Amino acid sequence: MSSTGDYPRMIDPDLAVQLVLDVVGGPEAEVLALEEAVGRVLAQDARADRDYPPFRRAMMDGFAVCSSDAGQTVEVIGELAAGDPPRFEVTPGRCVAILTGAACPPGADAVVPLENVVREANRVRLPSVVPGGAHVAAMGSECPAGTVLFQPGQVITPLVVAVLATWGLTQVRVWRLPRLQIVSTGSELIPCHQTPSPWQIRNSNGPMLAAMAQKMGLARPAVRHVPDCLDAIVQALDEAHEADFVLLSGGVSAGTYDLVPKAVAAWGGRIVFHKVSQKPGKPLLVAVRGRQVVFGLPGNPLACHLGFDRYVGPAIRQRLGRPPLAQPCAGILASPVRWKGGRTFFLLARAQAADSASAPWSVEPLSGISSADLFTPSRANCYIRLPPGQGELAPGTRIPFTWIGTLE
Amino acid sequence: MSSTGDYPRMIDPDLAVQLVLDVVGGPEAEVLALEEAVGRVLAQDARADRDYPPFRRAMMDGFAVCSSDAGQTVEVIGELAAGDPPRFEVTPGRCVAILTGAACPPGADAVVPLENVVREANRVRLPSVVPGGAHVAAMGSECPAGTVLFQPGQVITPLVVAVLATWGLTQVRVWRLPRLQIVSTGSELIPCHQTPSPWQIRNSNGPMLAAMAQKMGLARPAVRHVPDCLDAIVQALDEAHEADFVLLSGGVSAGTYDLVPKAVAAWGGRIVFHKVSQKPGKPLLVAVRGRQVVFGLPGNPLACHLGFDRYVGPAIRQRLGRPPLAQPCAGILASPVRWKGGRTFFLLARAQAADSASAPWSVEPLSGISSADLFTPSRANCYIRLPPGQGELAPGTRIPFTWIGTLE
Repeated sequence: MSSTGDYPRMIDPDLAVQLVLDVVGGPEAEVLALEEAVGRVLAQDARADRDYPPFRRAMMDGFAVCSSDAGQTVEVIGELAAGDPPRFEVTPGRCVAILTGAACPPGADAVVPLENVVREANRVRLPSVVPGGAHVAAMGSECPAGTVLFQPGQVITPLVVAVLATWGLTQVRVWRLPRLQIVSTGSELIPCHQTPSPWQIRNSNGPMLAAMAQKMGLARPAVRHVPDCLDAIVQALDEAHEADFVLLSGGVSAGTYDLVPKAVAAWGGRIVFHKVSQKPGKPLLVAVRGRQVVFGLPGNPLACHLGFDRYVGPAIRQRLGRPPLAQPCAGILASPVRWKGGRTFFLLARAQAADSASAPWSVEPLSGISSADLFTPSRANCYIRLPPGQGELAPGTRIPFTWIGTLE
Repeated sequence: MSSTGDYPRMIDPDLAVQLVLDVVGGPEAEVLALEEAVGRVLAQDARADRDYPPFRRAMMDGFAVCSSDAGQTVEVIGELAAGDPPRFEVTPGRCVAILTGAACPPGADAVVPLENVVREANRVRLPSVVPGGAHVAAMGSECPAGTVLFQPGQVITPLVVAVLATWGLTQVRVWRLPRLQIVSTGSELIPCHQTPSPWQIRNSNGPMLAAMAQKMGLARPAVRHVPDCLDAIVQALDEAHEADFVLLSGGVSAGTYDLVPKAVAAWGGRIVFHKVSQKPGKPLLVAVRGRQVVFGLPGNPLACHLGFDRYVGPAIRQRLGRPPLAQPCAGILASPVRWKGGRTFFLLARAQAADSASAPWSVEPLSGISSADLFTPSRANCYIRLPPGQGELAPGTRIPFTWIGTLE
């Protein structure tokens, strides 16, 4: 069987990702309070508005002195703790007791640590050598004012939050989260909190897709369900006008009740592609109208999951200003794999830390009983990719794998 | 310099982690709606309440037939789509048109695909061989009723959400998130949205610690600031009575204004340890009162960051029912490292994907200008651990590293 014989319009899975990224467009900026921006990507330069340290900072508990007083006994005229204004002036013959983190007073050019002096009531004897600048961090020595702290593209990690807070950058321009609307279709499905009749099944794709979006850091998307009815699907698309991405599940194959392609066309969407040479998830459809992108994901749960992970995930990452394509990791196959077919095969697997110097991950493929079976593969945390044709890999084979649903 | 000479009570960093885990206690359960439970860990068994598939499911578009009618021409008495009640009865000489996902009607024991029949108006000619059960998934063939789907300890990934939704498990018992209260101390600090006087600096530890908690999936913690004043710190501890963990930053060294140890004792906390043989972060203090654990983190930003990552992180993971200790990964050093000192040295670094078959990560150490310098290390995403004593590692050396702030 040739990969194009049965499905003349099927496209290559890598081309499909590229077409998705082409229509998704670049990220859009918004301004957020710093504490709301954790995990986002900066859409601006961040500059230091002042030197750091912003004053000559004492690095030890001790005495702020004139270094020219080395070997002398000098008078202690006061004490400065961290946060105190440097309200004394140090002149030869006088010093100020100082605590770590405090600003050195004018006139003092060195700090002598507590343990290096001999104290006599209100006076201290200084050591015979006091290097100028000792135990004092000069203004701007760690970061001078005007430094570009970060450039656009920087992920806001907790350490980056600390730097931005240090320089008072409490409002930051970041790439905004794309808004998702999930629409599951299928007349056999009922909401998962209802009791099904014997011929009905509970909707699992809606909650699964919402969870995938949450795992990528998006707000929990709205989820709605419509029956296999052309008008209902078109109406759901119309009502999703605030969404950047609309995720439909089900109704995308070639059967009588597979109404998604017709509904998308009726709604005015331009179909970018329909059917990808992959297993599972062949019937995947992607369409665009204005700036909205519609993903017609298959109803089969594993196909739906792969459709999100391989196509919606990169679209989300591109909108967030992250590298869209996840880097594969290297692992060692834990059990054999055999495959056959004209399409690229994406197989869910479980990677676990291995005690091996040559590959840190042991990868166990999780073959389901059928393509609709969800129970067996639910332990998966990654997938492996197997080429069209047939093949067999023995345990111990080195194999690349891709984590499911990560931002990076 | 021996590692215990200067600081007689300093303890080993691995012992310190173990002591933290001993006082933190196990996780506590709560019941959540499934959509709120993404990323949590199950605290219950999850069982299948019905067979899956819950009915004899057609696997192809075609005709539901008696297999004994093979080679015959039979009458089509109706059509069943997915979600339709199986409202027909199939008897020899009659069949029902059926769509993928629909329930097979009583009497039918096989589905013949559309492409394998010859249709003549209201009748179809069946192929000469129709195996019993063909293209029908038997009830319970993928997962029979009563199966234990998941056991306690299962992380609720999107695939697990799909399985739980399929079986109507819309309320789940999970380990609850620990509640954090962050209290930064230091009279030199002002809130980061205010304009500092020349001798003041903006508070960065509070926002950084809150971001670290968020990155681990916790709710954004309350953050408050108190000056270096014993009564103010005691009051902040008193007012944090709803927190499982109180994170203090600053005031934990041995100086005159390092009031945290005294405040913790005055509040009634039992000090588990104070001072760890590590760099940065030697002055770390951990105390316990009832079920509350207090972490006295150093005020130095990098020491504070390490204190959260190495001690608070494992405590959070243990409360969430996750393995508390992060597994190190293997990398290749990108530039040389030299170190010296009596304490274990934790050095921030940046791991990047490397095009190497033998180690997938290239690890660049990020040495700051001083221990208070935050700017240089803010690109870090991991740390490496160097033993007490002195040493040197050349570029290309294989080295374990640990990601910062991950749940797993």
